[in-house]
Amino acid sequence: MAVRQLVFPSIEKIEGIRLATASAGFYSNRQDMALIEIQPDSQTAAVFTKNAFVAAPVKLAQRHLALQQPRYFLVNAGNANAGTGQRGMDDALACCHAVAEQFSVKPEQVLPFSTGVIGVDLPTQKMLAVIPSFRQNLDALSWKSAASAIMTTDTQPKAVSRQIEIDGQVIRFAAFAKGAGMIRPDMATMLAFMFTDARMEQRLLQTCLEQAVSESYHCISIDGDTSTNDAACLVATGHGVSIDARNNKNLTHFQQALTELCVELAKMIICDGEGATKLITIHVTGGESEAQCRQIAFTVAHSPLVKTAFYASDPNWGRILAAIGRSGVSDLEIDQIGIFLDKLCVFRHGERSPDYTEAQALDIMSQSEILLHIKLDRGHRQTKIWTSDLSHDYITINAEYRS
Amino acid sequence: MAVRQLVFPSIEKIEGIRLATASAGFYSNRQDMALIEIQPDSQTAAVFTKNAFVAAPVKLAQRHLALQQPRYFLVNAGNANAGTGQRGMDDALACCHAVAEQFSVKPEQVLPFSTGVIGVDLPTQKMLAVIPSFRQNLDALSWKSAASAIMTTDTQPKAVSRQIEIDGQVIRFAAFAKGAGMIRPDMATMLAFMFTDARMEQRLLQTCLEQAVSESYHCISIDGDTSTNDAACLVATGHGVSIDARNNKNLTHFQQALTELCVELAKMIICDGEGATKLITIHVTGGESEAQCRQIAFTVAHSPLVKTAFYASDPNWGRILAAIGRSGVSDLEIDQIGIFLDKLCVFRHGERSPDYTEAQALDIMSQSEILLHIKLDRGHRQTKIWTSDLSHDYITINAEYRS
Repeated sequence: MAVRQLVFPSIEKIEGIRLATASAGFYSNRQDMALIEIQPDSQTAAVFTKNAFVAAPVKLAQRHLALQQPRYFLVNAGNANAGTGQRGMDDALACCHAVAEQFSVKPEQVLPFSTGVIGVDLPTQKMLAVIPSFRQNLDALSWKSAASAIMTTDTQPKAVSRQIEIDGQVIRFAAFAKGAGMIRPDMATMLAFMFTDARMEQRLLQTCLEQAVSESYHCISIDGDTSTNDAACLVATGHGVSIDARNNKNLTHFQQALTELCVELAKMIICDGEGATKLITIHVTGGESEAQCRQIAFTVAHSPLVKTAFYASDPNWGRILAAIGRSGVSDLEIDQIGIFLDKLCVFRHGERSPDYTEAQALDIMSQSEILLHIKLDRGHRQTKIWTSDLSHDYITINAEYRS
Repeated sequence: MAVRQLVFPSIEKIEGIRLATASAGFYSNRQDMALIEIQPDSQTAAVFTKNAFVAAPVKLAQRHLALQQPRYFLVNAGNANAGTGQRGMDDALACCHAVAEQFSVKPEQVLPFSTGVIGVDLPTQKMLAVIPSFRQNLDALSWKSAASAIMTTDTQPKAVSRQIEIDGQVIRFAAFAKGAGMIRPDMATMLAFMFTDARMEQRLLQTCLEQAVSESYHCISIDGDTSTNDAACLVATGHGVSIDARNNKNLTHFQQALTELCVELAKMIICDGEGATKLITIHVTGGESEAQCRQIAFTVAHSPLVKTAFYASDPNWGRILAAIGRSGVSDLEIDQIGIFLDKLCVFRHGERSPDYTEAQALDIMSQSEILLHIKLDRGHRQTKIWTSDLSHDYITINAEYRS
């Protein structure tokens, strides 16, 4: 089940990037490992989870990234290699060594990424056994198999491509991501691998990535949980147009395209959220600060009662009001709150809108994509986030995850 | 469904308290209103929800309490009279007036309490019509019918009685409460009405209530949501032993009994939590402050992934570790974390305990009452809270609440 049935897009190659997949047996009948090859002289930016207990591969990826420009990303799905102590670090490093040996690069030029169950030792021998097979199936167009191989509880592979024109030349973007549960803001919140053929300095690339992430992956929440393994990486291979900070117009254009691409992937993650049947956009306007708007938006987004009401297509807006009221924002006045479903005014001036009818609200709540607009009337800042509903299938998926 | 099948206790009368119930049609085949009569010269302490959008009855109860010692509590289930604007205030006041007229007291001596759906106007005419019927059925022993009449999604009435001896004389306590969803800490989190025949000054009574609430109702969470209507009231009728601040031994004894009684009721609420199949005690020790311990305990308690793992009896302790890691407590070191299920050490020194076996963990996770002990090794403070699991029935109950 997913809110939207995605059609996997046709994605052209990004000069300098090749992909390969393999099956290490994490799942019984699918590919579950991916290798991404990055040509030399590319630049890589990355954002990692803020969970205090980062997984071994995240620690190692951060360490390697500080030492060398990466040449290979090694990803496995099905095991997070988190909470696994020194053995987890040894296992991740062993995999990096195997890739390094296979492709004659340094181990520090390999970044490991793992996603799946926490607290189980990595089946390193199985992984080492399949690493040599990557060499013969590296390909510039294997986007779909790579996007599929990194899935865990995802039901569909998620990818986006985009082209923009700068100074008469094309810049290409391609990106794929996984994520369906343990998704919340303040972190990269999933695995996302993004590529462009633009030529950029690493520091600028990192700035652009952080900006895009703050408006996309940091604005989604499925269940409020945060993984120990999340990462978003952006690689610029440098084959195409040069983007630098001195040409502000070009930079803005690049930034906008990157952010839109991230938002599109972020919304795909919500649409494929565990058990999700609805994509809910929560737009909070009229706040004194963006942080205040986010505090309210995420309190509403994380409320199990609000989420089950959306699941049931039940316009029980009292739950939304109660969630706003407990958000912890100081001096909230009920008279200043407006609640709108799409264009329908539900609540304002401290009471139900006289124009409100439950029939209209029911129509909107029955849609698969819903805009909840909360007006604060306290200032001029705003935020927009995306979340999903809470259904029986969420319970089933998570109660049976390991069985 | 409930974690424990409660046997309603035999409760003696509290001299000075009488109870009556009635049916105003909020529910089709049960009593749904209660009136509690308090004799003159009693003292009343109360704690109300901290939700910014308190319901009309809460506003009015707070206002009346500041003016007069209350003589009557009027409670209805099925409608919260919240988010109802000025009309909600008028409705609540009309009910107070009707009770005042019936019993020849001032309207300010009546405190209204409402619980149920938010945002729907109170059916005041129906309520006014049944208020006269209270007079003939006021009774000192109607605890069970009163505890039943205030229920919403509760499956069982919840009450506790207790007697302690002070200076050779008996002090009696009786208390009942409702609450099954929209339950979280930092608020009174439900309706609880507690009575004692002790003689106490109001200020001391309030202090004792706040202390007891901080160790009981503020330590439970079912779904992290907070109602607009919660209240806990403690009435001392003054027929029995005098408790004052000068006799510290007696005061301590009284406080301890009151706290234990509140803890017992609080745990009953969790056991009857919407869809709850497990009572989970989360004990966090070794923190630098109680607030730090609470932050970790409630992050774990509110994690949908942890809650579904408990529901599934799945010892997926990685979810507990991930929740601790995202709790926002600064400088958490994975090596300092210990996770225990009952006495079983699951995780310590940054990795799974060598003694851990999944079979043992599965046995513990299959129990209906589970102790999760999280050791921090940072200091000497601790906290203990109670929560429930997240099941299919939670979704069903809340998706169908209004249908």
